[in-house]
Amino acid sequence: MTQGIAIIPADESHIAAVWTIFQEVIAAGDAYVFEAGTTLDQFGAYWFAPQFHPQVALLDGEVVGSYVVKANQPGRGSHVANASYMTASAARGRGIAGMMCEHSLRYAKSLGFRAMQFNIVVATNTVAVRLWQKHGFRIIGTSPGAFRHEQLGYVDAHVMFRELDDIG
Amino acid sequence: MTQGIAIIPADESHIAAVWTIFQEVIAAGDAYVFEAGTTLDQFGAYWFAPQFHPQVALLDGEVVGSYVVKANQPGRGSHVANASYMTASAARGRGIAGMMCEHSLRYAKSLGFRAMQFNIVVATNTVAVRLWQKHGFRIIGTSPGAFRHEQLGYVDAHVMFRELDDIG
Repeated sequence: MTQGIAIIPADESHIAAVWTIFQEVIAAGDAYVFEAGTTLDQFGAYWFAPQFHPQVALLDGEVVGSYVVKANQPGRGSHVANASYMTASAARGRGIAGMMCEHSLRYAKSLGFRAMQFNIVVATNTVAVRLWQKHGFRIIGTSPGAFRHEQLGYVDAHVMFRELDDIG
Repeated sequence: MTQGIAIIPADESHIAAVWTIFQEVIAAGDAYVFEAGTTLDQFGAYWFAPQFHPQVALLDGEVVGSYVVKANQPGRGSHVANASYMTASAARGRGIAGMMCEHSLRYAKSLGFRAMQFNIVVATNTVAVRLWQKHGFRIIGTSPGAFRHEQLGYVDAHVMFRELDDIG
């Protein structure tokens, strides 16, 4: 656990700070599907939608990360959660993404989800792939060339999955 | 090819007929994530959204099927298409689903997509799995228990994929 980190539900007062992290994350073009050109209003309506259950990670009161958890499919697929995570570059290397992942697994379990699936984990983002594996996810499939990487062109994307049976 | 079948872009005049097929398809609870309780307004706003490019299959002028094709992900994942198909039960066994699939592959190619992915093909729906395989899709992964089947409970769902390189 990282000292001084608190993860709490996000509210409108956090939008500007999360937006700054989002812009930083998408600028690299190597991990997230969103591209430059997404507006603050579009982002806010998406990430802060109530059914996304947005959370923020605070370090000494400052927003250093955010995640969302939601149903991966409607109706008959809605018992499987999906989550997305972002960490401020200045705060990386402190285990914040891992903390958010653990938090999201417990939170998803408390919301009644039975499993969690990531649909498009960029295969070249090996740091992320290893982090999710460390937190119990396994690669259950790979979509060939499904991500257009800013530097590398079309690269593979993994589908990663874990049950939540072991989550307390 | 089935005699007398035409596939054309859907417009508002087709909503009622497609809605009837949709209700029939979801009543079984064995293939589609949508559940009973979806309203006509919700369905119309979803299936007939412009970015879904809705199409209908007509047999002697009557709507016997419908499909949509859209980007499976935004931005850096938007070169992979996703499609959904429905056939009226009274018109099954005539190859209409296969015709719609072929049509959707050519249409997706014409829209600039490089590949097509299905995210949640119910594993117990072996007729559909074999049909998509016949049309060039392969199973690239399986989400354990990701579909809540009306009769069978939680069953696996396949991710199926094909490139569009060979489509004219």
